[in-house]
Amino acid sequence: MRVTGVIVEYNPMHNGHLYHVEQARRSTGADAIVAVMSGHFLQRGEPAIVNKWARAKMALQQGVDLVLELPVAYSAQSASLFAFGSVAVLDALSIVDSICFGSESGDIRSLTALSDILVAEPPQFKALLREELKKGHSYPRAASDALARYAAQDESIDSHLAQQPNNMLGLEYLAALKKLNSKIRPATITRIASGYHQETVTHPSIASATAIRKATFETGIDTAEHLLPRSSFSILQAEWQAGRGPIAWENYRQALFTLLHRATPSSLAEFVGVDEGLEHRLLRAAMQANTVHDLIEQTKTKRFTWTKIQRALTSILLGLTRQEQSELHLAAGPSYIRVLGFTERGQELLRQASAQSSVPILTKLHKEKPKMLELDLRATRIYSQGYPVWQPGAESWDITLPVLIEKASKNVSRIER
Amino acid sequence: MRVTGVIVEYNPMHNGHLYHVEQARRSTGADAIVAVMSGHFLQRGEPAIVNKWARAKMALQQGVDLVLELPVAYSAQSASLFAFGSVAVLDALSIVDSICFGSESGDIRSLTALSDILVAEPPQFKALLREELKKGHSYPRAASDALARYAAQDESIDSHLAQQPNNMLGLEYLAALKKLNSKIRPATITRIASGYHQETVTHPSIASATAIRKATFETGIDTAEHLLPRSSFSILQAEWQAGRGPIAWENYRQALFTLLHRATPSSLAEFVGVDEGLEHRLLRAAMQANTVHDLIEQTKTKRFTWTKIQRALTSILLGLTRQEQSELHLAAGPSYIRVLGFTERGQELLRQASAQSSVPILTKLHKEKPKMLELDLRATRIYSQGYPVWQPGAESWDITLPVLIEKASKNVSRIER
Repeated sequence: MRVTGVIVEYNPMHNGHLYHVEQARRSTGADAIVAVMSGHFLQRGEPAIVNKWARAKMALQQGVDLVLELPVAYSAQSASLFAFGSVAVLDALSIVDSICFGSESGDIRSLTALSDILVAEPPQFKALLREELKKGHSYPRAASDALARYAAQDESIDSHLAQQPNNMLGLEYLAALKKLNSKIRPATITRIASGYHQETVTHPSIASATAIRKATFETGIDTAEHLLPRSSFSILQAEWQAGRGPIAWENYRQALFTLLHRATPSSLAEFVGVDEGLEHRLLRAAMQANTVHDLIEQTKTKRFTWTKIQRALTSILLGLTRQEQSELHLAAGPSYIRVLGFTERGQELLRQASAQSSVPILTKLHKEKPKMLELDLRATRIYSQGYPVWQPGAESWDITLPVLIEKASKNVSRIER
Repeated sequence: MRVTGVIVEYNPMHNGHLYHVEQARRSTGADAIVAVMSGHFLQRGEPAIVNKWARAKMALQQGVDLVLELPVAYSAQSASLFAFGSVAVLDALSIVDSICFGSESGDIRSLTALSDILVAEPPQFKALLREELKKGHSYPRAASDALARYAAQDESIDSHLAQQPNNMLGLEYLAALKKLNSKIRPATITRIASGYHQETVTHPSIASATAIRKATFETGIDTAEHLLPRSSFSILQAEWQAGRGPIAWENYRQALFTLLHRATPSSLAEFVGVDEGLEHRLLRAAMQANTVHDLIEQTKTKRFTWTKIQRALTSILLGLTRQEQSELHLAAGPSYIRVLGFTERGQELLRQASAQSSVPILTKLHKEKPKMLELDLRATRIYSQGYPVWQPGAESWDITLPVLIEKASKNVSRIER
């Protein structure tokens, strides 16, 4: 079987994602699609709008054959860590032939050249980066500006690609493949219709997840029905009806403000991503703000972007300290592969992978767990505190729920117990 | 003016408390009553059913002339610290002639003799205490049993008084008066109708606050109407209607479970009252429990009483570490007197006290605040996270709300702004 990997968050899975899966299959000639998906806390530092089991189900019903969970140690982190963790999971599985990601451009040659600079970090690039950081920009902004300036010397590279924010993750995927010396072949497909962060809906049936979440919170899920595959829509509806969403940062107001009110600048600075004085700004804002939105708004500066602040809040909420993070040895890649669900074809993939994968593949949990997995379980316990309607036992769903098994042929969801 | 002090929690103020205020006034011949009242977290380690401003208002409308706040550093603590802090506030005010407290017995001579033993801690008493602790009892239980055994040698003392739990606070008040070498004269009145902890209602119009809270949570405030002074009832009704109650531990479920899920045994053991292995039991229970009630139920043992666990949870919620507590110098007594409200007669008392009190009397807050007061403000910010309906700005009510001023003659409440 030819196997293509995709790196996703599906927050929630919409028509644009469906198009991406179809394109990935077509452009790589894949027989099967494996997705690495963030769990409950996402790359932009947000809790997922709906839990990971519901999101895995959407994926399985829309053409993905196997859904693996990106450990939270990588998911709510910088583009570089997120990309490295995701690619490392696919690489460790040992049966993935290609990775297919969306970009603003299909120009894989220029993208690869740019990512090579990110990996090599030549001195001149580093000097440009320092220069850009001095302007007070955030790290991601400074890095892409420095990269564009450095690459502009080489006429064969389309250096502007570095400044399109949606390409940066792609560059990081390519960099990760190189760092891992992976045999996986990269492929890119051009994004259509809507930018990643675009908030408004401009295409009749395709909009960004950001726009769909916005519509859901402001006018209800029904107004986003035409932007979602039928199964995504009914899964979301069922979850909302059961009181399990929609989830946003405001659902963690009590925990977050309590944590901030009892913190000191130095205790806060122990958490991953709380640095360069962010601790002082956060504590000051917490004394004035009434909502998490206010809190972020009042904390934000040119350097401390919305995303950076949200990621810091995730670390604070989960209690992820620099000390704990250092014990996870992130540079070594995930020490396990967690399966969230599979179709019949996915099951076949798992059979193949189990003989070849470089780390254990977990479909059930054992008593002794890697530290990185303990952090995933903690994230679920804390995430479950935010359900609008109290769900007794939700804290232990990570342990008690079996993996999802979908009969792809019937395209009907069921959870085997 | 002859001034009598009472030490109260008014959670909520009911007919029994009204009787106590009237008896205190009558038996001591007082012209004015000063109450020291716990703020938002109470001696048994619980959040108050309604905020401190509402409880102060009840007091002012039912015969108390001046309401002072017991700093939270003392309020959610052992009987000994609670009593010491409360008596120290009244002593520091310098205009209080007597303290009047309820007990199972009016026998002030025996109570004084017993409290003298608590202060002196003779070696034989300490040996008995160690013996009782070895039996696996909680500290309060062991202390009262040891005290009763020690006092049994002296026939002139009614040693059984030590074993009635409702007397222990009284003994601690007497001990505190002695430690402070206070000129305040103790007086006791016999409790009527209902024990402190009694959960069921047996008297037609008097029941314990415990029974009233139980009725409120189980069948609604209306079923407790006949047990409350009219003004208490309407204050509670108004607060509930505004979405500010009733408050119980469950209202802090998200914050508390989040804190426990992200704690380690050693980080948890830093908090006041988390000792002797309680940290391990709490963390184990947090993995199983769905509610705060379950959590306490699953943690509790013969030694770790419900009250001890609740007090530990309060420390955890407020982030009160042993380190921070040591910096508060509790043995020196409160470093300020915080006024929550007064009647016209109370205002006259404040005028007298302001010239004589041994610590500053605060009716408004200044920018520079004692550490102990910072802890009170933190407690309010965290308490306000538990209101059933979100109250924007509630975190800063401690700073923005003026003290209550009641016209005793009209007996109508108003907040002067």
